[in-house]
Amino acid sequence: MSGVEDLTILCFLGITKESIVDVEAMVRKVEQKIESCSQQDVELHIERIFVISQAEPRLPLQLEDAVRPDGEGEEEGRATVNQDTRLDNRVIDLRTTTSQAIFRLQSGVCQLFRDTLTKKGFVEIQTPKIISAASEGGANVFTVSYFKSSAYLAQSPQLYKQMCICADFDKVFCVGPVFRAEDSNTHRHLTEFVGLDIEMAFNYHYHEVIDSITDTMVQIFKGLRDNFQTEIQTVNKQFPSEPFKFLEPTLRLEYTEAVAMLHEAGVEMGDEDDLSTPNEKLLGRLVKEKYDTDFYVLDKYPLAVRPFYTMPDPSNPKYSNSYDMFMRGEEILSGAQRVHDAQLLSERAQHHQIDLEKIKSYIDSFRFGAPPHGGGGIGLERVCMLYLGLHNVRQTSMFPRDPKRLTP
Amino acid sequence: MSGVEDLTILCFLGITKESIVDVEAMVRKVEQKIESCSQQDVELHIERIFVISQAEPRLPLQLEDAVRPDGEGEEEGRATVNQDTRLDNRVIDLRTTTSQAIFRLQSGVCQLFRDTLTKKGFVEIQTPKIISAASEGGANVFTVSYFKSSAYLAQSPQLYKQMCICADFDKVFCVGPVFRAEDSNTHRHLTEFVGLDIEMAFNYHYHEVIDSITDTMVQIFKGLRDNFQTEIQTVNKQFPSEPFKFLEPTLRLEYTEAVAMLHEAGVEMGDEDDLSTPNEKLLGRLVKEKYDTDFYVLDKYPLAVRPFYTMPDPSNPKYSNSYDMFMRGEEILSGAQRVHDAQLLSERAQHHQIDLEKIKSYIDSFRFGAPPHGGGGIGLERVCMLYLGLHNVRQTSMFPRDPKRLTP
Repeated sequence: MSGVEDLTILCFLGITKESIVDVEAMVRKVEQKIESCSQQDVELHIERIFVISQAEPRLPLQLEDAVRPDGEGEEEGRATVNQDTRLDNRVIDLRTTTSQAIFRLQSGVCQLFRDTLTKKGFVEIQTPKIISAASEGGANVFTVSYFKSSAYLAQSPQLYKQMCICADFDKVFCVGPVFRAEDSNTHRHLTEFVGLDIEMAFNYHYHEVIDSITDTMVQIFKGLRDNFQTEIQTVNKQFPSEPFKFLEPTLRLEYTEAVAMLHEAGVEMGDEDDLSTPNEKLLGRLVKEKYDTDFYVLDKYPLAVRPFYTMPDPSNPKYSNSYDMFMRGEEILSGAQRVHDAQLLSERAQHHQIDLEKIKSYIDSFRFGAPPHGGGGIGLERVCMLYLGLHNVRQTSMFPRDPKRLTP
Repeated sequence: MSGVEDLTILCFLGITKESIVDVEAMVRKVEQKIESCSQQDVELHIERIFVISQAEPRLPLQLEDAVRPDGEGEEEGRATVNQDTRLDNRVIDLRTTTSQAIFRLQSGVCQLFRDTLTKKGFVEIQTPKIISAASEGGANVFTVSYFKSSAYLAQSPQLYKQMCICADFDKVFCVGPVFRAEDSNTHRHLTEFVGLDIEMAFNYHYHEVIDSITDTMVQIFKGLRDNFQTEIQTVNKQFPSEPFKFLEPTLRLEYTEAVAMLHEAGVEMGDEDDLSTPNEKLLGRLVKEKYDTDFYVLDKYPLAVRPFYTMPDPSNPKYSNSYDMFMRGEEILSGAQRVHDAQLLSERAQHHQIDLEKIKSYIDSFRFGAPPHGGGGIGLERVCMLYLGLHNVRQTSMFPRDPKRLTP
């Protein structure tokens, strides 16, 4: 019937905590509300009880410890559970009300993402994860033994999304794993995460792409706010945070404006320098103060700090038609208009000192008619972490993978 | 504006086939229907035309050849395009009306799968693809270099689905890549395909699981029939096939009945022998003749031919609570009630001579309360191939991977 937690009668019967039982019982109304249960108006008068699956008596962690907010009950000597213990015993940790809420909300993010894009006429595609050549020069790529040869794990579905645009699909999205062999041990990096990817042809201006993506994000935020309040409040009980704020339409800042705001706040950086992670966070706070939003787009990055396939800004060759999106000051999406002309793409690659032979098939994709297009990739776990105001991406990955963790 | 195919005026202007153009034109009604175009009632009177992306003059394949049914136009010496040429030039091959229809229908299958399960209370989960140990003994698994160590690519999300059931998620599904390092070069094997996976706890009988899965399949078949007729007919124009037939409720045969039908048709096989692929196909034809359905479930497989984690039939230990599902005589799903008791699971693994140390974490997942549960995994590409009556799974994989193909 259900997990057994606090029923003293079961302890009395010798049934261990977390065992699965079937119960035959009469449901009776009670005169006084039962404050300690979620069903407060009725109680079961048990006639027969069957133990379907007996849990071992010693649990590796206690559920009541695993949902306790940091610091609470410290005086009484009550424990909280550290992250490695949680992850090592994920089957039990996922039973907490907090974990259940996080991953039901995550399921909601995927559904809202797909439903919004389907309504906008996007087609869902499935892209291969085993690839023959490392698309961006070979750094940070996992190698796979492939029969008598070797292959790589895709760092992004970008090439395949772009090929679909060149193949007349017009607007596509995909949801799937993305692999990064980066030895980064931070709160926000995983070696495998779920990418929510978008790519589309546009008619007049790449801002059509930005508008489609930001509207999709806004639909996700609204859907969560309207349909997942119980989950949000459950998570907040253990991990308090401010409600997530967003504007309609989404705030779009240009890179030069952001640099000016940072200069004004005392940061020393050149106009065409990339943003460091601390400066991204600071900028997030400045934007929140000035515009009261936790979500915004930073547009027109310096060309020099973006990958070779990024379209230069036709009116100012120092900048580019590229953008990042931020939630609570952390990047959740990187995207751009892509170069769709084989000749220009070759020139840009050469400028980046990339071996043209290695990216020949990528460049050849654009030789038989390619519409102007752009897109971006969103990290699912980051979106969930930042929406909920959590502080570690491992909290929003069911079975996280990092340089030091491959289990369970 | 759109791909350019047959407009002689463009050839006259020197614009190559498949180039992308923007057109400024007057839309005029025509007096006589234009039979050769999909827009038959209007025509464009071009005022200005801009070439947005010029295709190279020599296309590696012609779209009109790529959509020609086998044999048609042979007398006039007209070409068709062989599969490797198509796949080598997938960006162009995907532009055909047939390819567009196939992959829009595939997008529909995924959506129908998820929407049906979401309505039934299932939660979508994301499972890791990089795993530390090969779950089923290590055969047919791809190895990945993982920093200074090595890892594997998941052959199925099964362990993770089961962990989610043990973690109180009750009913889960996932859609994602599945990897098989099998050196099989057949019409129906891929080394990477998309798995539509289901797992659920049940209350009384594992047939609750079968009923949930078959009803999901029926909702998919109905959704395709009702909403994708244009796509189905487009594919049929090039690849004619009989409409896909199914019953409600789905036909469920027991293994012994199937063996009896095969015996009656002259096949020699033992009661507990596994079904060979030709016998599966023959059985499909016999079932179609007798019951007029292209979809059915074969239940209660002999225990000996199933994996160690399969629940034995409590009333007949030679058989098991396991099942396959078939479309047009080919397997699309394999599933079972799983052993949810750590002790029995250890015994079954030992019986299969599996090293218990290697599957310790799998077995340990069931030590802290595990409800009876079952599920199965469906191959997306096979479902699309068999629903449409196609004959090669590479037709329903955008960028297929097999032992000999890793590109594009």
